Amino acid sequence: MNIARIETIPYKIPYITPLAFATGRIDNVENVLIRLWTTDGVMGEAEAPSRPYIYGESQQSIITAINEWLFPSIKDLRIFDKEKIAQKMAWVVGNYTAKAAIDLAIHDAMGKYLQMSCHQLFGGMSNQLTVSHMIGYDSPEKMAEQALAMRQQYGINSFKVKTGKDYRKDIKACTEIRKCLPDATLYLDANHGWRADQAISVYHAIRELDFAFFEEPSPAADRIGRHRLNKEMAIPVCGDESCISLADVSREIFDGISSMICIKMARTGITESTKILHLCEGLSVPVYVGNQGDTQIGTLNSLHFGAAFKHACEKPAELTNFLEIRDDLQADALEIKEGKMRIPTDSIGMGIHIDEHKLNYYRQDR
Amino acid sequence: MNIARIETIPYKIPYITPLAFATGRIDNVENVLIRLWTTDGVMGEAEAPSRPYIYGESQQSIITAINEWLFPSIKDLRIFDKEKIAQKMAWVVGNYTAKAAIDLAIHDAMGKYLQMSCHQLFGGMSNQLTVSHMIGYDSPEKMAEQALAMRQQYGINSFKVKTGKDYRKDIKACTEIRKCLPDATLYLDANHGWRADQAISVYHAIRELDFAFFEEPSPAADRIGRHRLNKEMAIPVCGDESCISLADVSREIFDGISSMICIKMARTGITESTKILHLCEGLSVPVYVGNQGDTQIGTLNSLHFGAAFKHACEKPAELTNFLEIRDDLQADALEIKEGKMRIPTDSIGMGIHIDEHKLNYYRQDR
Repeated sequence: MNIARIETIPYKIPYITPLAFATGRIDNVENVLIRLWTTDGVMGEAEAPSRPYIYGESQQSIITAINEWLFPSIKDLRIFDKEKIAQKMAWVVGNYTAKAAIDLAIHDAMGKYLQMSCHQLFGGMSNQLTVSHMIGYDSPEKMAEQALAMRQQYGINSFKVKTGKDYRKDIKACTEIRKCLPDATLYLDANHGWRADQAISVYHAIRELDFAFFEEPSPAADRIGRHRLNKEMAIPVCGDESCISLADVSREIFDGISSMICIKMARTGITESTKILHLCEGLSVPVYVGNQGDTQIGTLNSLHFGAAFKHACEKPAELTNFLEIRDDLQADALEIKEGKMRIPTDSIGMGIHIDEHKLNYYRQDR
Repeated sequence: MNIARIETIPYKIPYITPLAFATGRIDNVENVLIRLWTTDGVMGEAEAPSRPYIYGESQQSIITAINEWLFPSIKDLRIFDKEKIAQKMAWVVGNYTAKAAIDLAIHDAMGKYLQMSCHQLFGGMSNQLTVSHMIGYDSPEKMAEQALAMRQQYGINSFKVKTGKDYRKDIKACTEIRKCLPDATLYLDANHGWRADQAISVYHAIRELDFAFFEEPSPAADRIGRHRLNKEMAIPVCGDESCISLADVSREIFDGISSMICIKMARTGITESTKILHLCEGLSVPVYVGNQGDTQIGTLNSLHFGAAFKHACEKPAELTNFLEIRDDLQADALEIKEGKMRIPTDSIGMGIHIDEHKLNYYRQDR
């Protein structure tokens, strides 16, 4: 059960509708599928997304980092030696999603090797998660329609409202969505798009609307602004793009910048995500499992991690992004019923099953 | 792989020489061996020590808690669902070593079920630990002799100096030991035996002796005294008996009472110890793996946990207590060579092998 080989396959699938947010937009999934083989023929799979505006990684940089730096550093190590593997990869700075994909593939391989479902290998708290859906930018009316349609079709009743471009319009969108969904769990994400004073204005304008938390309302780099904002707010400020490592999470909490944390498999894999989760559990800091433009493959990682741990499965997790993508490498479609996503009882590893025909069609290296 | 049955066996083995420390003395190991069977016949083993002056638990209370409260709460759960198991046991307050023994036995069972060594299942950072030895109370000269003999016989070069009864005598003991062992790693443990002002006096008297840290020098309950002490000290103050849960660790660090943490398998098992370790790693708080009057069984738990994680294996671990006990249930004797204890390459689970003849001889329930 030692690491023998890693294959890196870039692929591209268009979004149905391009995804818009405060710092950019995405037209295509541009990921690298990795296949990690062990000496006894077990294969773990995962993928690394290229997200230049968050991690600075391209498909090319991911492939180079894995083939030239990371794989040679961990070749021949046992897949279960996750701490040693993390340590051996530590000399490479950055390259978050490349490292996380290796860690995710290793955990998939562990599950397959043991013929166990990963969520049970990790902690087995639950076998399902409550699903949250992200409502992308649009007119306030269309955003409310989006949410109602998701509730109608999937029973989803938790929504992230994307904000951060025009705070006056954002207030209208929040108000409109709450009007249409009086009992839903709502929170917003401004991706650092507001100034601190604007975030404070939004908070006071919508405080009767019972939003659960604000994610990255103002730039985390504006420490004084965030402190001013946090002093005003009764609900947590959640750190996402400012909290992409264990060290980041620790610093942002202690500096009083964030009081809740978004955990994403795509950047911290299983090993570092578990450390972040435990740090937050120890500090009574809430967390939720977020989405990084996930396909069904990434969604399966979030599902298995989130379901495994008590402190992670308490909040709705963002598991719907794959619905926005025109197609998917995963052969069996994931199901959302009555607002929940369940892990099938016969699931092994992360439950990933690649459709080889689709992979051949979407891969960019042939 | 579901929990089917737990057997609780009280047993007693005398110490070669009674163990003396600031708050009491121990003449005998009085533990409860637990055997946890799964539905498919796998058996995980561990033990709970009775330590009234730290946890308030007796052999009887341990047996009652397991048989009447804890086992009925977790019967039929899968052994891998450790988060769910911890949650189901949470309604029982206290009973630290009873709960920890179940968690340890479950992890032993996981390893046996998977035919894997636990240290590799947990993280696989290393397959060995540097060993530290605790020097019990005696005259300064005899304490130095103890240390020299351990170095001679086992190559050990890290020592905990037990202090906390008479601070003037303690200063002499520290001075004598450092004179005999100029290059050893030395630290001391006063078990809350000094007042804060005495601890400050000791610190200044021995600051040239290069001690690594002070463990529980003054009562943790004297918060103001500890703050005064911490202000004076350049080296960490380590929390042990004040840090027996994840919540304790978090509080003691944030209140500025302790700046280093002793992790003990006997009280927090694998699941909660891992959370404590990750909390501390995230906060850059050093930890070491301590001993709770461990037999070879408890020592194996410490060895597998400590070796698995980078942040745990960096410091010497206390793995010699079993040398002070007249006999042991473990069939294969653990070896310390050149100051290290290694996990054999063919180890499965926690590597526990009970000698059934000895168990029959030492058990107290027949």
